[in-house]
Amino acid sequence: MIAQDTIVALATPSGAGAIAVIRLSGKEAITIASQVFQSVSGKDIGKQKTHTIHLGHVVDNGKTYDQVLLSIFKGPNSYTGENVVEISCHGSTFIQQQIIQLLLRKGAKMAQAGEFTLRAFLNGKLDLSQAEAVADLIASDNEASHQIAMQQMRGGFSNEIAKLREELLNFASLIELELDFSEEDVEFADRTAFYELLNRIEFVLKRLIDSFAVGNVIKNGIPVAIVGEPNVGKSTLLNALLNEERAIVSDIAGTTRDTIEDELVINGIGFRFIDTAGIRETKDVVESIGIQKTFEKIEQAQVVLLLIDSSQLSVNSLPNVKVEIAKIRNKFPQKPLVIVLNKVDQLTPEALAVFTDELTDNSQPTTDNRKLITISAKQKIGIEELKNTLLSFVNTGALRNNETIVTNTRHYDSLLKALEEVQKVKWGLDAGISSDLMAIDIRQALFYFGEITGEVTNDELLGNIFANFCIGK
Amino acid sequence: MIAQDTIVALATPSGAGAIAVIRLSGKEAITIASQVFQSVSGKDIGKQKTHTIHLGHVVDNGKTYDQVLLSIFKGPNSYTGENVVEISCHGSTFIQQQIIQLLLRKGAKMAQAGEFTLRAFLNGKLDLSQAEAVADLIASDNEASHQIAMQQMRGGFSNEIAKLREELLNFASLIELELDFSEEDVEFADRTAFYELLNRIEFVLKRLIDSFAVGNVIKNGIPVAIVGEPNVGKSTLLNALLNEERAIVSDIAGTTRDTIEDELVINGIGFRFIDTAGIRETKDVVESIGIQKTFEKIEQAQVVLLLIDSSQLSVNSLPNVKVEIAKIRNKFPQKPLVIVLNKVDQLTPEALAVFTDELTDNSQPTTDNRKLITISAKQKIGIEELKNTLLSFVNTGALRNNETIVTNTRHYDSLLKALEEVQKVKWGLDAGISSDLMAIDIRQALFYFGEITGEVTNDELLGNIFANFCIGK
Repeated sequence: MIAQDTIVALATPSGAGAIAVIRLSGKEAITIASQVFQSVSGKDIGKQKTHTIHLGHVVDNGKTYDQVLLSIFKGPNSYTGENVVEISCHGSTFIQQQIIQLLLRKGAKMAQAGEFTLRAFLNGKLDLSQAEAVADLIASDNEASHQIAMQQMRGGFSNEIAKLREELLNFASLIELELDFSEEDVEFADRTAFYELLNRIEFVLKRLIDSFAVGNVIKNGIPVAIVGEPNVGKSTLLNALLNEERAIVSDIAGTTRDTIEDELVINGIGFRFIDTAGIRETKDVVESIGIQKTFEKIEQAQVVLLLIDSSQLSVNSLPNVKVEIAKIRNKFPQKPLVIVLNKVDQLTPEALAVFTDELTDNSQPTTDNRKLITISAKQKIGIEELKNTLLSFVNTGALRNNETIVTNTRHYDSLLKALEEVQKVKWGLDAGISSDLMAIDIRQALFYFGEITGEVTNDELLGNIFANFCIGK
Repeated sequence: MIAQDTIVALATPSGAGAIAVIRLSGKEAITIASQVFQSVSGKDIGKQKTHTIHLGHVVDNGKTYDQVLLSIFKGPNSYTGENVVEISCHGSTFIQQQIIQLLLRKGAKMAQAGEFTLRAFLNGKLDLSQAEAVADLIASDNEASHQIAMQQMRGGFSNEIAKLREELLNFASLIELELDFSEEDVEFADRTAFYELLNRIEFVLKRLIDSFAVGNVIKNGIPVAIVGEPNVGKSTLLNALLNEERAIVSDIAGTTRDTIEDELVINGIGFRFIDTAGIRETKDVVESIGIQKTFEKIEQAQVVLLLIDSSQLSVNSLPNVKVEIAKIRNKFPQKPLVIVLNKVDQLTPEALAVFTDELTDNSQPTTDNRKLITISAKQKIGIEELKNTLLSFVNTGALRNNETIVTNTRHYDSLLKALEEVQKVKWGLDAGISSDLMAIDIRQALFYFGEITGEVTNDELLGNIFANFCIGK
């Protein structure tokens, strides 16, 4: 499976910038680069040490393409484990393309998406979950997702899995050894110790599986449905939340804000605000469809903000609002609901007291997932409390404690399957099934463990994983 | 004027990619980097050689930001001439910003646009015209503009100017020496040799000034007005021209194609196609305005393509077309005009012969700037001939001969002023004016020469030049 081709790709983002980096990897990387590179001091780059940088020109056929810096990495001391050359050229897209095309003419092949990292994996520089973390790291756009990816890339996750896998492998060997002596009815594997190991594995797997609930939302942003009629101040609220974070958000190019979902980072955690049409009672068919959609969006959300224009509240309209609240409450009893009274700067203190009291459900004990907050989005009153409330719904404990968090659906699936097999083995032990049947279940569990770190793999799996990478990584 | 600050900026294009490069430059670059970098092998980067690369992590306060490669360049052997550190990190915009903000906290200052190159100029690594060529190089999006910028960056232009300036400076010194001995009526400067030098300078200046006409259009693309009614096949023609170049154009990210102007690279030369509404006779006021606009666009264009749907031609409509041609011809007698008969695949050979004959103006000798070409944009017939015709209107001789071409308006202005002063000196010599007056004119000419290469400069000039750079260069 060792690659013979030398691959080339742009490693920096496309578009014009001060510099761009073109990366070559493969047996012939240095040879190919030396055909087009003239060092200013006449050095032969084939004879230079690894991890050195050389100033010169890319020249071919009498034509000078650019003045560049050329970095040499000799395998196995490189990202891919192969010989790697990085050419740092001027950042014109034209120059980038010209140099890449020149290198292709000299025998390099265009890299596939993720091919550099795939080679790093195949050459044992990274395990599979670390390789996947590279893509996550590049995609990370907030503190939390960055931290999780970083931890995974440094092997936190794989180490835990690999250690358990090895222990399990030892038992598997012992139990398989028993098969060879099956007629003598010996037990090489201590059943008590084995049961203890299985319990430990089960515990770790369950923790990792549970962490996916946190990991997944952190990776993709926590969905928050904003329920409210037009003009209750939805966009003012979003702007108020956004304003305080503008420094971060506007600094990060590529943060897309479309009209339907607004993304926002609060204390390093990404939130996705999903606008809905509200759920006022209506006889209009079209609006009923709107209500249906609102419920669907609430379904997907992890937190619901019910935004109410308190300046429009009256003794007459209060019952309607209460019905609204009850509807959401009954349909989604477990979902955190924050009732946000907006425009409170326009109320008298007395009116505010009445509305707050009326909308606080005294028939039930106050629960953690039910809050009422009074704000003025326009005057930026109460925004901080709202943010803290949102953050309180995110289980950041694991994050704070630097625990391993699973964010990858593929890992989650393998963990679930591994857990199932481990539980089968436990049941088997309880039921006293024969060693040969148990060995099959253990092997199966080992298979799913191996899938995560890449000890067990196949071309289709690798294809799926690396196709999601960008070219040049 | 030596900078004390250490500056930092992203050197690669903004947005996400496989990797990003953050550049630090200044006395403290290595010191600042060493505060946040932990080498995997425990190396002290303060003690490493120049032009070496080190694998490690960006770490601060117990938090790991990223695994990175760190490159060290020790002044004066660096781009800026100062100590430079380049950190190659994972290409997440979040990580980029986090690392830059960390370096700012450690004492680096955010770099201004072009500040790295400004420092390179101030430290004598580049002269001013070379520094400007760096920006041109990054902006170059076709072969011709790239070649010119490359040549300028390698000093082709400055060398020529600097050599003449030095010769002129010698004469200036001699003539100023005469002033010290003015009562003795001596001539240290050989007037014949001086006159010969002035002639040489004048010749070179005129050539450079003339080259601006070519250089300017090559830098900005050659404007071509397409004159034609709707449905004569304008977009099919543009697509036909584009198709053959698709490999180049689509490869170059950032090539913007708006609805009004289509940019297209033919044999390495950029063309801008400007769509016009045509100039058919009309009584409609609105359309008259359209015709006025068409003439304005033709005015700006360097070449006019009159596109005619030959399948709609008849004995009746021919006179109208002839009037159209005559109008353009009379209004812009010097402007190259290409009459393009489109859809000739729908004509009989006989009809084609008649139309071609009728539209070829036999009353005048065929001139180089008047051509008739028959094409079928749909069937891709005649496209090659049309391209060659367009190229024939571009004076690429200077380009082919690798002559120095001026593309920069600032240089052009200084060259014009220098020429004026040189001519004054010549007239002075002819008129036998006194050495002291002549010395003033020579000094003035030297001033303008110096403006180009940067021997003469001021903060405002530098500010104007480098403000047009991107940050990170």
